[in-house]
Amino acid sequence: MKVIITEDYQEMSQVAVQHLLGVMHSQHRKNISITAGSTPKGVYEMLVPLVKNKKYFEHVHFYNFDEIPFKGEEDRYGVTMTNLHNLFFGPAEIDRERIHVLDWTNYETQDERIKADGGLDMVLLGVGSDGHFCGNLPNTTKFGDLTSRVNANATPEMADVLLSEVGGDKEKQPDFYVTMGPKSIMQVKKLVMIANGKKKAGIVKQLVDGTVMENVPATLLTPHPDMTLIVDKEAASLLSY
Amino acid sequence: MKVIITEDYQEMSQVAVQHLLGVMHSQHRKNISITAGSTPKGVYEMLVPLVKNKKYFEHVHFYNFDEIPFKGEEDRYGVTMTNLHNLFFGPAEIDRERIHVLDWTNYETQDERIKADGGLDMVLLGVGSDGHFCGNLPNTTKFGDLTSRVNANATPEMADVLLSEVGGDKEKQPDFYVTMGPKSIMQVKKLVMIANGKKKAGIVKQLVDGTVMENVPATLLTPHPDMTLIVDKEAASLLSY
Amino acid sequence: MKVIITEDYQEMSQVAVQHLLGVMHSQHRKNISITAGSTPKGVYEMLVPLVKNKKYFEHVHFYNFDEIPFKGEEDRYGVTMTNLHNLFFGPAEIDRERIHVLDWTNYETQDERIKADGGLDMVLLGVGSDGHFCGNLPNTTKFGDLTSRVNANATPEMADVLLSEVGGDKEKQPDFYVTMGPKSIMQVKKLVMIANGKKKAGIVKQLVDGTVMENVPATLLTPHPDMTLIVDKEAASLLSY
Amino acid sequence: MKVIITEDYQEMSQVAVQHLLGVMHSQHRKNISITAGSTPKGVYEMLVPLVKNKKYFEHVHFYNFDEIPFKGEEDRYGVTMTNLHNLFFGPAEIDRERIHVLDWTNYETQDERIKADGGLDMVLLGVGSDGHFCGNLPNTTKFGDLTSRVNANATPEMADVLLSEVGGDKEKQPDFYVTMGPKSIMQVKKLVMIANGKKKAGIVKQLVDGTVMENVPATLLTPHPDMTLIVDKEAASLLSY
Repeated sequence: MKVIITEDYQEMSQVAVQHLLGVMHSQHRKNISITAGSTPKGVYEMLVPLVKNKKYFEHVHFYNFDEIPFKGEEDRYGVTMTNLHNLFFGPAEIDRERIHVLDWTNYETQDERIKADGGLDMVLLGVGSDGHFCGNLPNTTKFGDLTSRVNANATPEMADVLLSEVGGDKEKQPDFYVTMGPKSIMQVKKLVMIANGKKKAGIVKQLVDGTVMENVPATLLTPHPDMTLIVDKEAASLLSY
Repeated sequence: MKVIITEDYQEMSQVAVQHLLGVMHSQHRKNISITAGSTPKGVYEMLVPLVKNKKYFEHVHFYNFDEIPFKGEEDRYGVTMTNLHNLFFGPAEIDRERIHVLDWTNYETQDERIKADGGLDMVLLGVGSDGHFCGNLPNTTKFGDLTSRVNANATPEMADVLLSEVGGDKEKQPDFYVTMGPKSIMQVKKLVMIANGKKKAGIVKQLVDGTVMENVPATLLTPHPDMTLIVDKEAASLLSY
Repeated sequence: MKVIITEDYQEMSQVAVQHLLGVMHSQHRKNISITAGSTPKGVYEMLVPLVKNKKYFEHVHFYNFDEIPFKGEEDRYGVTMTNLHNLFFGPAEIDRERIHVLDWTNYETQDERIKADGGLDMVLLGVGSDGHFCGNLPNTTKFGDLTSRVNANATPEMADVLLSEVGGDKEKQPDFYVTMGPKSIMQVKKLVMIANGKKKAGIVKQLVDGTVMENVPATLLTPHPDMTLIVDKEAASLLSY
Repeated sequence: MKVIITEDYQEMSQVAVQHLLGVMHSQHRKNISITAGSTPKGVYEMLVPLVKNKKYFEHVHFYNFDEIPFKGEEDRYGVTMTNLHNLFFGPAEIDRERIHVLDWTNYETQDERIKADGGLDMVLLGVGSDGHFCGNLPNTTKFGDLTSRVNANATPEMADVLLSEVGGDKEKQPDFYVTMGPKSIMQVKKLVMIANGKKKAGIVKQLVDGTVMENVPATLLTPHPDMTLIVDKEAASLLSY
């Protein structure tokens, strides 16, 4: 794992964008999976004007790697795709045919569809202070899992997590979500993970120390042959360097 | 992980040789780590005449990935390099400067030396019926370990294993061995693992089933983005295919 | 350009097979274009038993790079595909859906179809004593040409060449042929060219000397970043080494 | 060849920087050759603050691809390295040991030194309105040339060109220059060429039309398997798109 320590959130986002654009510039089709959430907001703010209406990125295809349904509204985008649409796909005007949606209707074939598309070339990931990545929260999926469904009773906290994800509206609180598993993500050619802020300092230290433990899911990614962790100074504050 | 099921030991060896030669034919330097032991004997029998005195393989460098000293004879090759010398380096007449020896004098810098050499392009591995690979036996190293020293008291059976490795001669029974760790091997660009015979059928089934467990070390390798498992029919006999 | 000098036709063929198998063993789809004619007979004799009915090569797709119609019989395979079918596709029992035929009906879209398939990963080429490769004979195509139609009046000798190609039967003598052009072939990721026998010694020397001249078409390939020329001793007899 | 048409000089420079950073971000050593001159000024203005004092680019090595001596001052940098130092190496504070100087003392071993370093991963090139790239002016080097010395009498205009290159000072007017040849550049893994302004519209049209002619040297690069041409609207003004 290569660790890149940047000055601040701005530089963290910029370096992540450099990685994305480096993979996107290619003679042939590229498949990229990108993260929703708050950490990558800076990434998408920088990326949108560089990508919008650019014909030279027409060979780039995008994939989401997890999804949470709004209960009773399963006929529309879930939490992740709604967020990705707002942050990136919408403002960057990405053609619908280059967005490959993972949701509750097709998660069981996600891994084989990606394989048929030639595999993922890169994934941009965040990491939780508990060590989760994608929807792989501690004690939900196992290291060996491919794309999976995780039920609301998987852990004591999960029901609350899901309620929070749908904005606290009890009526929309889902019974499950779907996520690409640790094994799915390890098969991606290039992994790029971003983390910023003091509250990530602990998990960043764990990742750099190098122990691999199933109850800290992101530790599995540290031995990947092309893994880059990009952090700001606060997230790096517990590292000795 | 791609699983290749072959008819017999002969074909298993042949397909492994095809993978090796495919990586070795290149315009630029290639770094390959290869396994000692009994499983690869067929591989080296086929490989030696194809490689011996061939100038077109002069850019290929070789690395061993573990070593066991003969106690009291630490100034000569250990068990692994002696075996590799007999099976391959000697008969294939590989130049000494293209053989990069890992032993007890330099194991602490093995990972950084490999990184400085440009990384390993391929490793050929065997697997034990207990799920060990290289010197990563159950309950010796951890998933997150780089090249490590394992002491004779690491597990109850270890002293016996080491005695057996030096041919049962108590005087030469070593107190430790060194091995590239699970994390070291995961960073190799291409992993090829071979297994043959009924006694490997159980571990092969475990690897294909896909669970990743620290006490079955080889399961860590199954999510690697370029992992190939080559088995004969007997080793595949518990698979449903 | 890397030059591999082998002892004899047998070793030349073997080393070419090693290159082919090295590209064919992969986690993902591979696209390979292969040559017909007499030079590669040894290659296909070795390759057929290694490939026939092997499920582990099911992701490999094959392309021919030129074609000559039998006049009046344009509804069946031309000279090249007939030859490739007899030498390789038939005996190796390659599925029809993995054979991508270039002929007179579709040559104008050959380059864009290949691009849509992800590009060619490797091409196995022969070379004529006049420096031709594929159907790029001196003074027919230009260095900058993509897949092209060449008419029988392109050069003074062409009518005779075409008559000979269809076995001397005047009734079947075609008015043209089609071929991937020099520029099409240069865009392939890996080029492997084979040549054997005294009558190839002159062109081999020209290729190694390194001059690039449009009337010796194969000289264009010598600066390609991944070009390997495999020759036997006779074909290498004018080289100083 | 992939053609990227940008709005203006600013976007042309930005897209070239994206290509450079994409190659530079890597787990292993990368070797990059970069162009001097006026076209890339915008590239270096953007690149310097992104690269200066960034430890995460410490594995990137830089190479110049041509050099013109100041006559009588052969013990200091020539025209190209002086220019590169002013534009990039100086302001970006690149360590001296990561700058691999080509000059009159070592040009004969340039190609073999690059090969020993693992090959060039990328070259950033400009193009002249006459079709020259690096020091490969029409009728100086041949397509098949590796790194070469070109004398002042190579063409009628050369003496004037050299005088202009040293700022019009007759005393410093050199008798020759050195340049990586067309064959040297073709062997680079990734080629990126930039061109802007109306006066480049003619050569850009020639490159896109695709004819390959030795007296328009840059046309040789158009069939390279990973060639990208980045132009602004003015340089693209003769293209039909």
